[in-house]
Parts: sequence; structure tokens; C-alpha cells
Amino acid sequence: MKVAIVGATGYTGVELLRLLSGHPQVEVEVITSRAEAGRPVAALFPNLRGISELVFSEPDEQQLAACDVVFFATPHGVAQATVPALLARGCRIIDLSADFRIRDVALWEQWYQQPHAAPELVAEAVYGLPEVNRDAIKTARLVACPGCYPTSVQLGLLPLLQAGCIDLGDVIANSASGASGAGKQASVANLLSEVNDSFKAYAASGHRHLPEIQQGLADIAGEPVALTFVPHLLPINRGIHTTLYANLTNTEVDLQQLFERCFADEPFVDVLPAGSHPETRSVRGANVARIAVHRPQGGNKVVVLVVEDNLTKGASGQAIQCMNIMLGLDECDGLSAPALLP
Amino acid sequence: MKVAIVGATGYTGVELLRLLSGHPQVEVEVITSRAEAGRPVAALFPNLRGISELVFSEPDEQQLAACDVVFFATPHGVAQATVPALLARGCRIIDLSADFRIRDVALWEQWYQQPHAAPELVAEAVYGLPEVNRDAIKTARLVACPGCYPTSVQLGLLPLLQAGCIDLGDVIANSASGASGAGKQASVANLLSEVNDSFKAYAASGHRHLPEIQQGLADIAGEPVALTFVPHLLPINRGIHTTLYANLTNTEVDLQQLFERCFADEPFVDVLPAGSHPETRSVRGANVARIAVHRPQGGNKVVVLVVEDNLTKGASGQAIQCMNIMLGLDECDGLSAPALLP
Amino acid sequence: MKVAIVGATGYTGVELLRLLSGHPQVEVEVITSRAEAGRPVAALFPNLRGISELVFSEPDEQQLAACDVVFFATPHGVAQATVPALLARGCRIIDLSADFRIRDVALWEQWYQQPHAAPELVAEAVYGLPEVNRDAIKTARLVACPGCYPTSVQLGLLPLLQAGCIDLGDVIANSASGASGAGKQASVANLLSEVNDSFKAYAASGHRHLPEIQQGLADIAGEPVALTFVPHLLPINRGIHTTLYANLTNTEVDLQQLFERCFADEPFVDVLPAGSHPETRSVRGANVARIAVHRPQGGNKVVVLVVEDNLTKGASGQAIQCMNIMLGLDECDGLSAPALLP
Amino acid sequence: MKVAIVGATGYTGVELLRLLSGHPQVEVEVITSRAEAGRPVAALFPNLRGISELVFSEPDEQQLAACDVVFFATPHGVAQATVPALLARGCRIIDLSADFRIRDVALWEQWYQQPHAAPELVAEAVYGLPEVNRDAIKTARLVACPGCYPTSVQLGLLPLLQAGCIDLGDVIANSASGASGAGKQASVANLLSEVNDSFKAYAASGHRHLPEIQQGLADIAGEPVALTFVPHLLPINRGIHTTLYANLTNTEVDLQQLFERCFADEPFVDVLPAGSHPETRSVRGANVARIAVHRPQGGNKVVVLVVEDNLTKGASGQAIQCMNIMLGLDECDGLSAPALLP
Repeated sequence: MKVAIVGATGYTGVELLRLLSGHPQVEVEVITSRAEAGRPVAALFPNLRGISELVFSEPDEQQLAACDVVFFATPHGVAQATVPALLARGCRIIDLSADFRIRDVALWEQWYQQPHAAPELVAEAVYGLPEVNRDAIKTARLVACPGCYPTSVQLGLLPLLQAGCIDLGDVIANSASGASGAGKQASVANLLSEVNDSFKAYAASGHRHLPEIQQGLADIAGEPVALTFVPHLLPINRGIHTTLYANLTNTEVDLQQLFERCFADEPFVDVLPAGSHPETRSVRGANVARIAVHRPQGGNKVVVLVVEDNLTKGASGQAIQCMNIMLGLDECDGLSAPALLP
Repeated sequence: MKVAIVGATGYTGVELLRLLSGHPQVEVEVITSRAEAGRPVAALFPNLRGISELVFSEPDEQQLAACDVVFFATPHGVAQATVPALLARGCRIIDLSADFRIRDVALWEQWYQQPHAAPELVAEAVYGLPEVNRDAIKTARLVACPGCYPTSVQLGLLPLLQAGCIDLGDVIANSASGASGAGKQASVANLLSEVNDSFKAYAASGHRHLPEIQQGLADIAGEPVALTFVPHLLPINRGIHTTLYANLTNTEVDLQQLFERCFADEPFVDVLPAGSHPETRSVRGANVARIAVHRPQGGNKVVVLVVEDNLTKGASGQAIQCMNIMLGLDECDGLSAPALLP
Repeated sequence: MKVAIVGATGYTGVELLRLLSGHPQVEVEVITSRAEAGRPVAALFPNLRGISELVFSEPDEQQLAACDVVFFATPHGVAQATVPALLARGCRIIDLSADFRIRDVALWEQWYQQPHAAPELVAEAVYGLPEVNRDAIKTARLVACPGCYPTSVQLGLLPLLQAGCIDLGDVIANSASGASGAGKQASVANLLSEVNDSFKAYAASGHRHLPEIQQGLADIAGEPVALTFVPHLLPINRGIHTTLYANLTNTEVDLQQLFERCFADEPFVDVLPAGSHPETRSVRGANVARIAVHRPQGGNKVVVLVVEDNLTKGASGQAIQCMNIMLGLDECDGLSAPALLP
Repeated sequence: MKVAIVGATGYTGVELLRLLSGHPQVEVEVITSRAEAGRPVAALFPNLRGISELVFSEPDEQQLAACDVVFFATPHGVAQATVPALLARGCRIIDLSADFRIRDVALWEQWYQQPHAAPELVAEAVYGLPEVNRDAIKTARLVACPGCYPTSVQLGLLPLLQAGCIDLGDVIANSASGASGAGKQASVANLLSEVNDSFKAYAASGHRHLPEIQQGLADIAGEPVALTFVPHLLPINRGIHTTLYANLTNTEVDLQQLFERCFADEPFVDVLPAGSHPETRSVRGANVARIAVHRPQGGNKVVVLVVEDNLTKGASGQAIQCMNIMLGLDECDGLSAPALLP
């Protein structure tokens, strides 16, 4: 199978290339970047020296259309403009950006501050969270990969929402992400000298991932979930840790068993033994979310701890997982390497 | 004035020495350590070379009693054994350990897993949070300095509890601390290779600071506060960030004004402008807590962000602030240097 | 093929397990640890959850002898005691410790401060640096894997020594290593709070790797090389960077070409384009050394920059490379995954 | 005394403000920035909240001229354009940029790739390294503060050059700097995600500090010194570590004594006991260079280890030291606080 990557100069791009280099069934044929056209990817990403001979090219519709799957690892707004033509030529699309994640186009336009260029496709796009939408992903032409924070929040709440055992009126997601989540753009705010040896919350009054999470939780729960979401910036390269707080409406439920059963057949969600605390390093570079569930002092508050690598299960790994599902491959193809620790 | 420090080989010890080296009114006369007796403090802490000529000595009751104030920067259980004799000789004591923080002796013994050696003094000890207990500290013989996490939680909730505008039945404190909070003992868990470039929660089912926080909040509120407290470990040297979540019972209150007024006269609590997010680096080495208050999407959830340096306002700086109050000095003496940034 | 790992509770142990989990031809059958016997490796190393079902066992000669290859990932002194019996039973041994690296037994005993327990085997041991000793490794019964620093120094100097174009009387190796090089033992010196956001040299007057490097360089050069070696401690998890300085005796040589030709057929040594500066992150988790050669201001000083991952090409990856060679497998088996970046 | 700071939006600027906030004799009256005019400095640097009420203003010659001393904390090229007019109005100038460091104007223009705007002042400028030029600094109108790397190299070699006991034909400076040395400009190369958990050399073929160091060493030695200088980038905020290598021409000299005597009267150079290894954290935020001297294996190679904080003794602290000397104040005024550790 042949795949293309549009806009692979950022961190989700290099992560796609790293993971796909070990994929037994697909080959990256085309990799585009207007800014870097003509330059070998290994010149930009020295970890790929000796691994990839690819050279960035100008985006070319014909070249892209010749591939079975086209990944978009672009800033929001880019995929919208190109996807319709590629779909028309029979491509299947996996978009890692936010372009097709939110079904309410007006809501998307409000949070992303621009008109949507392909509103007619939004309804068709399948939200690429395999643990929720596996069947729909199989036949999807267009998959909108979840954001990094939304993946962690939805996976952590999934068992509780499916079991209907928490109060939907008050759920808190306290998340922290490594700096690669901010992308590879030049900025003062993300300089090592600004971020290192420090920690802070940001966007406490509202982050773009909020409407996506709210939509996803409502889809699972069948009704709206009142969520407070506060992201924080960690002085690490990769990794998201989300601490979820909810109030149990049924205190008889065996939470550990609930979580283990919910994810028993999931290849990429790992429920830790009771009493555990997952570490972000335990998923560094791996397409896994690890989850622990606690009930402090046996009260009615449930605390769920979720870790994932924001670039892997939170972005490029999950995108490949979706691709495997779409192409009828083994879902684990290319995704079974363990995390790098220490 | 002369002061002594018992057990100054750890991080709160070296922080006391660093801060007191610039104090205009007091001199450290005695510094004890059984393990390091005879060794210059500058040999253990190279930042003090050229600053301090002190040499660790064996603890000696007479020497200690000759000082106006004795700081205990010891593991829990140590101060209990020595304080009674020193008090009897007229010393004033500032204990940075947990020995005298909890008024319920049985509760202390349950969390610290040992019998209390001086239960008769527990009632007399004044909890050294100046923003709450300034007057009592002035005349105290024995001050129990708050823990690092408890300081951040109590300061962040103080305006809300005093105003009575939140639901006391459901308050969440999501905290994250730098690794110096774990002390300077040899351990695998706190090796750089284990902690660096990673993040995790710990003690989600119950941390020793929980009963202390609960006592402090109840003291402020006048009734029990149901608190969920989850600490996390940051790959940084210093700094605590606490994110507090509570439900407003009065949504008419102007939160920004409430916080600014509450701390208007406090020299070491800084309320940031509306919309701000404090960074731990902004208090690195400074005896300041910086606080921002948010009300996401204008709902009934209030989110308070608090940062402090766990070794300074969270420990040694606050201890010196208490000393200044006890000795009738300017409360800011020795504590006015700005944080180190970047 | 079946392999065993003795003493796999440290960082080289978990790295062996991580890499071997993806090896197409071998299976880890036995993993021993007296301290952790009975415990699943995944309980100690959470990145291996779902990857390895192995359980630590007490070392058992019979079990070990049933394997084709036995790795020793033990502190120095351990392999010496066990290797003779295993060799006698037909095992092939790959020792990652320092036990068999130095041919001069008296010199070994001087630097490691203990009598050597198997001096009769020292002469037989093959030094496992494939770029120098590939043929000898093929038929070796006992391979002594190079230390992490020595690998970087020898690879960086190899072209220059083979070409005979530098003054052997004055060579400098200025190295810096991540903290995992110090192992996973409890210690104050390697706490995050001690190492993070700091940098220092250590052992400037003599490090245990010095005699090993001197022996290796002399083997390559055919005569002694006067080396000054100063290691430094980096606040990172993994990675060694060595900066080599030597004086050219032949300034006509095309250094870039010399290096490229020397390593043209080496699968795990990457010579960067002229003018490059390798980064340790470009080899994070990969069995690669990347090298750049400079001649500042066109003078007679040659500067060679070498990076490797101390746990991979500097230890466990190189050990597996040796295993592949010994077993007649493809030398790259299990070692072709790209480095993790960012 | 009144001082002004031109261009204080970068890291040397905030460090000047931090240090001067504790200076007993001077007050910062004016702080200029075209980009930030009208904004409080505390809005840009949150560590200065409650410390400084200053507001950035447009540069105004009259305002600046009303100050006793004007600091330039600007990129190279800026001071040149403004200094002549200020000198003419009687100001004394301390330039932290590279504008007046190099006496050979053509050489400056070659390395900085622009014409020099005030070549007539270059000869008058005094190189602000107090340990070498204290007397000249006293009466200087214009002080050119040394670069961060040059300070560490010159201090480390000073005793050896003054004693004439090393071969001037082959000296090596292997330096490593924290990321704040690269300034506070938006860039991809200095993002946390690019620098963290990694290490590399840069500018191995020639760094702008090279001609400055060569000039300084020649001034001390009285003849040219052949220097190889390779800088490296550390994943830390602050700190420079320089490892110097030279060949002794006189092996009878007692190196420890030589260094101790050389700096016996220097308030800001600390010679560590024999066998020590200075850590950058031991000078974090302090105006101190700490130095250790080694002679590995008693050979003829001398290894000098030097640490300094690149923003303090390597820039702003040293600038204030020069100011104290120029104004006849106690040289230690405002500079006596210990380093922040951990």
C-alpha cells in the first residue's frame, strides 16, 4: 500500500515517518512541504538518516491521488482546502488536524476564527477514536483524528460514561502536556529558557480542544457532559497526563473491574493494577494509553489517571491505527514497539 | 539575634542558610547534624562557599538553648523529642517538619505511623501560616510551619472560604511539585533517570498532607471541607503548582476583586491580573505565592491557580517570615529578593 | 534461538529487553535477578507491560546453560564468577560489564579494586566493538562489550588512527553522558534535584574507562596513544557526546572523505555531511553512532564530534549487534528502528 | 546614583533588573525598549512583580544622559549608534554587547558582518574583566563587558598565562552553555522540544567569541595563544562550564597554589580544593566563577574546570561589578547573594 503525508515538517509528521518506517504493509511514497520542497527529510530530522530516503516535494494533487491513503499533518485550515478534490479522486484521507473533528460547523468557526472551507464534508468525517468508532472507521473515506488532550479525556471517561455511574453535571479534566504539543513553530513562549524547570496552566478559560471533548463525551454518554478542562504545560518533550475527577452516582460499582472489562479487547489501552499511578515515560513513543482508577478514601469521588504520548496515541500512532483499520490490516501493524524507558 | 538550625543537611536546611545569609537582623550561630558533624556547610552545599563559614556540629542542648530561635529542618519525629527541653529553657521554636501541624494526635499517629513524643505540646503549637494566623504567631513559643502543598491549597482557597461563596462539599486540589519536595535522601524513585522527561501522579489514594490541609481549611471555613487532593511529581527542581476547583454557591461575587482585597495587605501573596496563569519559575527562590482566579466560560466552577516555591514560601521562606513576626522584625526582612528567572 | 539475561534490573537490562522484544530471530527465555525473583519484569519496567510476560528468576546454571547466548547485565565482578561454568557447558557469553574488557589483569584489579575471579578467560575474551573486531566476534565464545565512553572515543578516532595522520602523543577526549550511565542504584548524587539544570565534570583525574580506552586505541594504532579523558554529567536520561581533539601530522588528508570511507560499510556508524554537529537526540534509543569531523580555521587541529545512546550503541544495542554476528544472523536484526525525536 | 538600561527585554536585561533591585547605592531610572514602550517590566518578567514599578519607554537621549551610568543590553550594532552622543553628554557607558570588545575593527566587521558605526571609540573602550583590567575600569568612560564564554576561558587560563607555564601553541577550550545564552528571540532551534534531553556542539568551525578570547589571552600572555574553542549547547537555563586543556612547560609548578594565589584577593573567583569538580548549579544566579585545576595522572596536561552563570558573572553581574568599580562603590554591592541550589 502507498501512503502520502501532506505537511510533514512538524512533530506529528516526523512521528508518522518514524512509525511508518517500521510498518510491514505500507510505504510512504510522497511527502510534501512547500517550505522544504527539494530537501531530504533526513536533513530536517536527523533521526531518519539511514532510515528514509524521502525528499519533500511541492504538494501535487495527482501524486497524492495515486496513494491509497493521504495523511494531513498540517495546521488547521489546510486539509479543508485539499481534501474534497482528493476524495473525489478516490483517496482515503486521515486528517490529524482539527479541520473535521467538530460536527457543528458554526462552533468550529467560532473556536478557530475562520470560515470552514468544506462544511459539506464535516458530517461524513468519522472521528478516529478506535475504542469508540472502530466500525465506522473501517469504511470511512475521511477520518478526523482526535486531538491529543481529547484522546486522553475520552479514554479515561469511557468506562464511566458507558456504565452510567457518574454525575454528568460536573466532570473535571486536569491535563498536562509536553512541549511538543505546541508544535515546531518559532516562538518565544516555547523556548527551553522559558519552559524548562517551570510549570504553568494555560487557557484556563477555554482551550480549542474543549468543544471537541464535549462533543465526544456527549456522543458516548448520549447526553451533554458538563466538563471543566484546564491544560498545563510540562517541561518535557512528549507525554500527556490527564487527571479526571467525577462524582459517582453508583458507589456499588467495582471500578477496577469496570475499567478492565471495558478495555479487555483493546490492543492500545492498558488498565494498570489497582493502586497504580501511570507515568508518561511508560508510553514514550508507544501507541498506548495507560490508565489507573482510584477512589480516594473510598468516597464518592472517582479519580482516573491517564497517560499517553501526545505524538503517538495522541496523534500519529492513532492515525496509523486508524489507517490499519481502514485498510483491513492488523490493527497493531507498525505499532507494537515498546516505549523508550528510561 | 541568634538562631540555630537543627538538621540542616537537606534542602530546607540549605534554603534556610541561603535566605538567612542575607537577613539584616539575625545570625545563624549553630547548625547541627549528627552525620556531618565537623564538616563545613560549604563542603556540602557549594553555593555557600564564601557565604557561610559555619561548621556542622553535634546537637547540643546548651548551644541550642543559647539561641533566640531554633529551626528544626528534620524528618518528622525528631523535633518532638527535643523541643520540650528547649522550650523549657526559653527558646522559641520554628518546626519545619510535620511534628506539630496536626492538632488531633491520634490522626497524626495514624498518618505518620509512630507514637507522638510530645502530645502535650500539640495544642500549644501555632500553625505558621501568616495570612491566617499572624497574631497568634507573634506570641507563639512553638510554630509548626505548614507543609508545602498545604500552603498552596489554603492560600488559594482562603478568599473563597472567607467569603463563603463555594460549596464546601466538593473541593478539588490538583497539585504538582518539583522533586526537591521529596528531600535529599538516596532513592531510586527520585533519580534523574527516573523522573526526568516524565510526569505522574502519586499517592492518589491519600497523601500525608491531606489531614493537614483538611484541618487548615476547616479552621478557615469554620466547618469541614470535603477535599480531594491529588499530588503529582514534576521533573523540575523547585516549585509547586496547585490547580483548585470548586463550585460557586454565589455567582454574583466578583472573584478578581475578592482575591485582590483578601490579599491586599499581604506582602507575600500576589494576585495576578484577571486572565493570568502563574508560572512556577516566577517564584523560584522567592517567598511569594502568586495566584490567579478563573471562572471558565462564566459557569459556576471557579478555578484557582497557585504557584509557590516549595522550599521558600512552601517551607524555609515561610519559616523565616514566621520568625520575623515572632521577633517583631519587619516581616519582609531577608525575604525581598526577586525570583530567579529564567 | 534462545537467550538469557543475567541481572536485568538495571538500565542496560531493560534496554536489552526492549530491543530483543522486536528481534525476529531470538527469544528471551530466562531473566534472572536475586532481588526481584518472582516479579514480572513489566512490574519493574512499565514500558514492557503488554510486551513481555517474563518473570525474574533466581539464577540457575542449568536454565542459563540451556540458552544459546547468555547476556550479563550485571555490576562488575559478577560475570567473572559465573561465566567459566557456563562456557564449560557450551554457552556463548556476551558480558556488558567491565569484567573481561581489559587484557592486563593487574591493571583491571588496580582500577576495579578487587581480585579477578577468572583471569584465565581474559585472554580469550573478544572485545565486542564490531567496527574493529567483527571477524573475531563471529567465532568468539566470550565477548566483552565495550564501555559506553570507550565506544564513542574509539569510533571517533578509528579513521585517524588507521590513516596514521595524527600525533599519538596528545589526544583529548572530552565526553558528556546522560545520567542513566550511572545506573539505577539509589544515590544522592544522581537525584533529579542534584543533577537537573546543572552540568559538571567528574573523575577528571582518572575514570575507570581510561585504561579500556587506552588499550583499544593502542590496538588500533599499533602503539600507545597518550589520551586525556574527562567525562562530564549531563542532565539528560540517555546519550553520550564525545568531542575529540588531535593534532594532524598530515594536513593534506581529506578528513571528510577519510571518515566516510572508513565507515562506508558500517551499518551503525553514520558520518554526517561536512560542517554538521550531531545531537544526542538523533540517536536516542537507536544503535547508531553519528560522527562529524571538523578542522577549525583550517589549522592542524582535528575535532571529531561523536554521539551515541549510552544504553544502545554504548551498551545493549551493541551487545545485540555482537550477538547477531556471533549467531550468523543479519547484523541489523532487531536494531533498525529509528531514534525517537523529539 | 541613577542608571539606565537600554534594551532590557532580553535575559541580560531582566538579570540586570533582578540584581540592581537589591543594590544599595543605585536606582534604575530609565529602561528603554522600542517594542515594549509603555509596558511595565513586571508584565514581561513576572518575577519582578512587586519588585519593580518601572515601565519601558522609547529611548530618549536626554533621559539617558541624565543618568550616571547607561547599560546597553542590546544586540550587537545598537550601542555603536547611540554611545557617541551619550559619551559626549558625560554619561558613562557599560555595554554588554559585542560592539566594543574587539580592538581590531576589521576583525569585528568580519565576524559580525556589518560596518562598525563608531570605530573611533573602539580604542578607548576598556575590556570589562575586573580580574585583568580593574584599574583601567575605574576611570573608563566606556566599558565593553566580556562575552560569557570569553569570561570563563580567560579566568581559567589567567594563572597559567601569568605564570608562563603552559605551551601557548596549543590550548583547548571545550565549553558548554545553557540555552539562555542564545537569547530570547523566537526560534525553532531553541524550542524546548529541540534542546531538551539532548546535547550537541555547535560552531565547531568558528564562533564569534573566538576572536574576543584570542585577543584577551594575547593581552594576558603578551603574545598570541593558539586556541581551539568548541562550544556546546546544554539543556539547562543558565550556566557555562568550560573545560580547558593545556600542556605544561614547567611541571614543577604547584598548580593548586598557583590558582589560589592568583585569585586570593578576587571577590568573585573561587578556587575549589584540589580534586574538586565545580557544578554550574553552584553559581546559579551568583556573580561567581568557580575553578578547579587538575593534572590527570600527574602528566604534563593541565585540565582546568570553570563554571559561571552566563547571565551573571558571564554578563549582567560582571557589568554591575564594573559599575561598582567605575563609581567607586564597594565592588560587591548588590552582588553578594548566594547561588540558588538546588
